[in-house]
Amino acid sequence: MNDHTQIQDAIQVLSTGESLRVWSFIVTLFGDLARGRHDALSGAALSQLTSRVGIKPASMRVALHRLRKDGWIDSRREGRAGWYFLTEHGRTESISFSQRVYAPADTSPLAQDKAWHIIICAPNSAPPTKTAAMFRVPGQTGVFFGIGPMPDLPETLSVSGQIGPTPSWLRHALAGPELQRDYQIFETQLAEVTALLPSNIDALDRAVLRGLIVHSWRRLLLRHPDLPDGVFGSECRIGPCRSNVTALLARLGTVTPDDLARIA
Amino acid sequence: MNDHTQIQDAIQVLSTGESLRVWSFIVTLFGDLARGRHDALSGAALSQLTSRVGIKPASMRVALHRLRKDGWIDSRREGRAGWYFLTEHGRTESISFSQRVYAPADTSPLAQDKAWHIIICAPNSAPPTKTAAMFRVPGQTGVFFGIGPMPDLPETLSVSGQIGPTPSWLRHALAGPELQRDYQIFETQLAEVTALLPSNIDALDRAVLRGLIVHSWRRLLLRHPDLPDGVFGSECRIGPCRSNVTALLARLGTVTPDDLARIA
Repeated sequence: MNDHTQIQDAIQVLSTGESLRVWSFIVTLFGDLARGRHDALSGAALSQLTSRVGIKPASMRVALHRLRKDGWIDSRREGRAGWYFLTEHGRTESISFSQRVYAPADTSPLAQDKAWHIIICAPNSAPPTKTAAMFRVPGQTGVFFGIGPMPDLPETLSVSGQIGPTPSWLRHALAGPELQRDYQIFETQLAEVTALLPSNIDALDRAVLRGLIVHSWRRLLLRHPDLPDGVFGSECRIGPCRSNVTALLARLGTVTPDDLARIA
Repeated sequence: MNDHTQIQDAIQVLSTGESLRVWSFIVTLFGDLARGRHDALSGAALSQLTSRVGIKPASMRVALHRLRKDGWIDSRREGRAGWYFLTEHGRTESISFSQRVYAPADTSPLAQDKAWHIIICAPNSAPPTKTAAMFRVPGQTGVFFGIGPMPDLPETLSVSGQIGPTPSWLRHALAGPELQRDYQIFETQLAEVTALLPSNIDALDRAVLRGLIVHSWRRLLLRHPDLPDGVFGSECRIGPCRSNVTALLARLGTVTPDDLARIA
């Protein structure tokens, strides 16, 4: 039932480019499959997931060791089986970032969004404590723009409301030519994977494919501020990538730790 | 009926401080009394108006000559009488500024005014063509704020909507300590004049008093941008001055060229 070659090809497509950082990919797997409070992945399941993308068992053990040392994951033994799970810290980080990774397509035109602001600090003043949704305007000192609730910053000049069309100098500063090229490559990869996927895929392959897609997507998102896709302009393919990621993850369906436990 | 001493005292109060520039005072008189398309003031009326504030006939003639040369006023003779009137240019300028001079008290809290904007130009770009309601943010380059319709400036980052409380560094940059002191002095003068005014005043004295009030007010307004009073903060007495000017002008009543023609 499982079209092995096509799945292998899809995994290949998603693995080209930069070599996969093992610890980072494992963080992605936990974030996608096991970010619930009582979720855990068995050592056996992790071995199968990582081996399907060409990660050697020794590399996996080193990565798990590092993630435990850094406080991201913890483990427990049950008889001969080892179980790995996110720490409270790892869970918080995963949940925080999952809001950005799984955000649905951004369809609101910027012009209709009234939650923008520009904030100007006193000349020669110390920089303010930035909030998560507050971005320095490139080329200016002490000038910030942002979306969402206005931060409470005394002694600043601020206007909140609608944003105008974003100028090209801002779009280029937020997402430069390299990032734009990488989004183009990712868009092509997603189209190839969409064409390759057979209708029946086992849970392990679904988990691996989800992991690879989310991993690339997460790494691209981390390279620019968390702003509506429209800010980056139509030449940046973040919007189409988001639609394709959403569609592919829906097609692959969610995979639970239980699904994997039955197989591994 | 006319309490001459009190009126003289009121004129004295409004004439203290900087010496009156004759040509500038005459511009104010025309703007207040004769800015209609067919309005004209006789040489005789102008002589009486200016002599009541201590301007010598020779100074008045020099000023009228200068204003004609500069294209502000023109004149015609009718028999032995000379009539002076604003040129089209002088009228346009007078009407334009009269909107600011006679603007009623600004009662709208800034927070409820949604017509503000901040505009940020491309780094190192040439400064944009400023509109009348667009002000450079002190201490920044290529950053402007303003009120009213958003100017159409491509390649700028802009947010339009509500303004936050204006910071002290902006208030001080817009209206420094000298201007604040001069508004305090003017507020005191207006209170003294209000206390001095008798109930019956002839048209010439009403015109002179109006002229002196409008002249001081106009010169103060010209020293800062045309922004709602609340922007300058409560420590700047522009708002109370505006209320007092409005009340005094209402109490003095309008004076027409015809009123003066009957006397002079």
